[in-house]
Amino acid sequence: SADPAKRLSDERPNFIIMLMDDMGYGDLGVMGEPNRETPNLDQMARDGVLYPEFYTGAAICSPSRAAMLTGRLPVRNGFYSTNNFGHNAYTPQEIVGGISDDEILLPELLKKAGYTTALVGKWHLGHRPQYHPMDHGFDTWFGAPNCHFGPYDDKETPNIPVYRDRNMMGRYFEDFQIDRKSGESNYTRLLADEAVSFLQSQVNASAPFFLLWTPDASHAPHYASKEFLGKSRRGLYGDAMMELDHSVGRILNALRDNNMTNTLVFFSSDNGAALVDKGHGGSNGRLLCGKQTTFEGGFRVPTIAWWPGQAAPGTVSHQVGTQMDLFTTFTQLAGQPIPDDRVVDGIDLTENLRDGSITDRSVFFYRGDLLMAARVGHYKSHIWTFTTPPEELGNGTDHCPGMSIANLTTPEQINRTDTPVVIDLSRDPGEMYQLPTYTDEYQTEVNKMYKVITDHVTDMVKGRPALDWCDQAVMNWSPSGCEALNDCLTPPKSDPYRCYWPH
Amino acid sequence: SADPAKRLSDERPNFIIMLMDDMGYGDLGVMGEPNRETPNLDQMARDGVLYPEFYTGAAICSPSRAAMLTGRLPVRNGFYSTNNFGHNAYTPQEIVGGISDDEILLPELLKKAGYTTALVGKWHLGHRPQYHPMDHGFDTWFGAPNCHFGPYDDKETPNIPVYRDRNMMGRYFEDFQIDRKSGESNYTRLLADEAVSFLQSQVNASAPFFLLWTPDASHAPHYASKEFLGKSRRGLYGDAMMELDHSVGRILNALRDNNMTNTLVFFSSDNGAALVDKGHGGSNGRLLCGKQTTFEGGFRVPTIAWWPGQAAPGTVSHQVGTQMDLFTTFTQLAGQPIPDDRVVDGIDLTENLRDGSITDRSVFFYRGDLLMAARVGHYKSHIWTFTTPPEELGNGTDHCPGMSIANLTTPEQINRTDTPVVIDLSRDPGEMYQLPTYTDEYQTEVNKMYKVITDHVTDMVKGRPALDWCDQAVMNWSPSGCEALNDCLTPPKSDPYRCYWPH
Ligand SMILES: [Ca+2]
Ligand SMILES: [Ca+2]
Repeated sequence: SADPAKRLSDERPNFIIMLMDDMGYGDLGVMGEPNRETPNLDQMARDGVLYPEFYTGAAICSPSRAAMLTGRLPVRNGFYSTNNFGHNAYTPQEIVGGISDDEILLPELLKKAGYTTALVGKWHLGHRPQYHPMDHGFDTWFGAPNCHFGPYDDKETPNIPVYRDRNMMGRYFEDFQIDRKSGESNYTRLLADEAVSFLQSQVNASAPFFLLWTPDASHAPHYASKEFLGKSRRGLYGDAMMELDHSVGRILNALRDNNMTNTLVFFSSDNGAALVDKGHGGSNGRLLCGKQTTFEGGFRVPTIAWWPGQAAPGTVSHQVGTQMDLFTTFTQLAGQPIPDDRVVDGIDLTENLRDGSITDRSVFFYRGDLLMAARVGHYKSHIWTFTTPPEELGNGTDHCPGMSIANLTTPEQINRTDTPVVIDLSRDPGEMYQLPTYTDEYQTEVNKMYKVITDHVTDMVKGRPALDWCDQAVMNWSPSGCEALNDCLTPPKSDPYRCYWPH
Repeated sequence: SADPAKRLSDERPNFIIMLMDDMGYGDLGVMGEPNRETPNLDQMARDGVLYPEFYTGAAICSPSRAAMLTGRLPVRNGFYSTNNFGHNAYTPQEIVGGISDDEILLPELLKKAGYTTALVGKWHLGHRPQYHPMDHGFDTWFGAPNCHFGPYDDKETPNIPVYRDRNMMGRYFEDFQIDRKSGESNYTRLLADEAVSFLQSQVNASAPFFLLWTPDASHAPHYASKEFLGKSRRGLYGDAMMELDHSVGRILNALRDNNMTNTLVFFSSDNGAALVDKGHGGSNGRLLCGKQTTFEGGFRVPTIAWWPGQAAPGTVSHQVGTQMDLFTTFTQLAGQPIPDDRVVDGIDLTENLRDGSITDRSVFFYRGDLLMAARVGHYKSHIWTFTTPPEELGNGTDHCPGMSIANLTTPEQINRTDTPVVIDLSRDPGEMYQLPTYTDEYQTEVNKMYKVITDHVTDMVKGRPALDWCDQAVMNWSPSGCEALNDCLTPPKSDPYRCYWPH
């Protein structure tokens, strides 16, 4: 099917998103990590554009990924739950819902534009058949629909399957080993091999491609291949970082070696580091709190763009970006119109990449469907504050360990709409110092923020919540392909219940 | 006096120390500062060696500088006070004491080795005549003996003088302006001009040189030249950072342009960022607390070495270093013996610079003459904990704003010698997560630490405390040279009293 003539005339770039899982803002050498585990990513930043002010669409996996692939906030695309006020929801295997057929995903638009689309790694937008990534724009898939939690007993709970395309290839802890004691697993290597194989398969292709590469070794339980075990100075998490970095190097080298450098690559993370891992997880550097929260440590993520010949090497861009911008940017670059029948939150970063020009834009920080904070210019206003529910703190869970800032790091949900906490993120990315309410600066920024929020809320059409219902019967008992592997399990009787979201 | 033949045969390197004031671990782009104000320092790191685990000798100006120049901890060289238990002391202009004649300073040894020695910037080892830097090893001096506090009324308190060599040239806020409202001052440019002039004066010199360059624009009150005012995204502190970075670039360019690249340059800071400046000062990045404390934010400082042709470019060294090592390293490289009649705490970093080899060493964290913590390997044990005295907290001073870690960030001084708080700095440079006391790892590390501390304390010969006495009469009323400027002030009657050290 290769058509060199068409290939030459098609100057649209290939796209790769390398989306890490629970990797923190401070985990890269270039972001100040003292152990410097990421020579390939640091080089990628020197060869590309570093975005120190880049955000996810949500501070937890599934809504974040749904936002990136739809270009829309989770409150619009339905990746939230109304069961627990202002709490985050995601897609564990007992979830009934998943990505709505009414949403238009980035790979769907790119496919329509003639791109070949591949997902290698975690999906996390629903594991039931109707949510399969190949029914939402991907031509191929190697990876798992859920997190690699376990091992389970396959009686109360099935182990999570790993798919190739439509059929399962086996399960974590059975066919895809993760040694919970040593942390050894070759799964990151498998995902890197898959990515490189995909790239090689595209060398003579007539169409450009989109690869979404989503390894999860930086999400607990962490793991690394034997080659990397014990190699870092930070324990298993650092070992996983080194292997992920090594894999990034392999993928970029595959592009270079095959003269496929007309490829726009974005590296980022789906949310901030999970500080509940208590020193065994990642680092958000100087940022406040972690995953699950609407503080910078939950939303601001390490982000690098790489586009040889198009984006100037060694650039640091102060463009405020979000992962939803990848939807808009890639769609535009592919020559497709942005859907005009719905609100899209992403902006087009093409000009920023090409000439450094900056677009003014606001960022909205939701927890569930509750708007907690907004960034307008370089000021962030917190209209609700909430860290870790007191009952969870009592269980030893803490999203803000060691951090205690008056009026801000409140375990309780507190409505501050009347007197928001306002912070200048340029001088204070750690959200340590609040603007005094009696200053003109405070009043000016609060008024700007009120206007932005009013416009935002006035426009808001909330999606139907997809993450309200759970049922043990929908877990991964008998994924497609289980018959061939003799690995079908018997589900319990269906008994739907409202999911409980503790955070 | 230039002797090209001698010059050619003398392959000993020149030395420069660029010592910043209150600049934090997180203030450089290469250390993750999101606003990226330091392109020259980031390039210096790419061309040299970055030390992410480098420490000062003390968490406050004067003792830190005394440690660097003597190679010895302040508890040995006398830069402490016994007036207030476990509090820091320094050299305000009412201090009676200064650097002891019994101490051997780095410039004295280098001078003996034939080096030309120059101090450009703040001295801070005593301002009375017997403590003059030219009586302690420097051939020339341009700068001030104390911090640039003020403006004063010249009645209760004189403004701080600026010297050229033996004589004052004028005073801060009178002849050397710092506009406290706008923050404008050309003083950093003056210091950069002086440094560059000194380098140019050495181009055809037969002897190698040592330049100690100590600008203080990053110490409150911050200031910047008109050219840099408003140029950063962080306010005045960021403007000062940009000018300091620009000046570093000028100095390195002067070396390159004049073929003087056989120069070993160290860039560092005298202590961590002063967090009491509440969002208007520097940043310690992910580190705990700030200046004045024995946490990493007080002692660990951004450090880069640059030595073209000798130190491999782009190196990140995990050598645990201290500024006292500069004493030992430079002395050895100059061919001088290290004094053997006293304990020297510095180690020789030459091999580390040349081939990356690592020397195992411990670090001791004192506050005043109280040993608070020790780093042994990559573990740090806190045997005393102390942040900000409660009465100072009540005044709005806080060395650990927003940080609250059980058993560690205690306002009170608490002796934990029986059950030290132990932290693995490799995985937890922010000192957030304490090793559980019931683990083997804890017991092993505590036992190692006890042995190291026992050896350290057994060897300890404390210097006579130099910072116990204050007297308004010793202030900078009539510095040498004041007659020529008609700027002599009348001191009050001598009335010595024990200085009070609040921290
Ligand atoms: Ca995640
Ligand atoms: Ca200082």
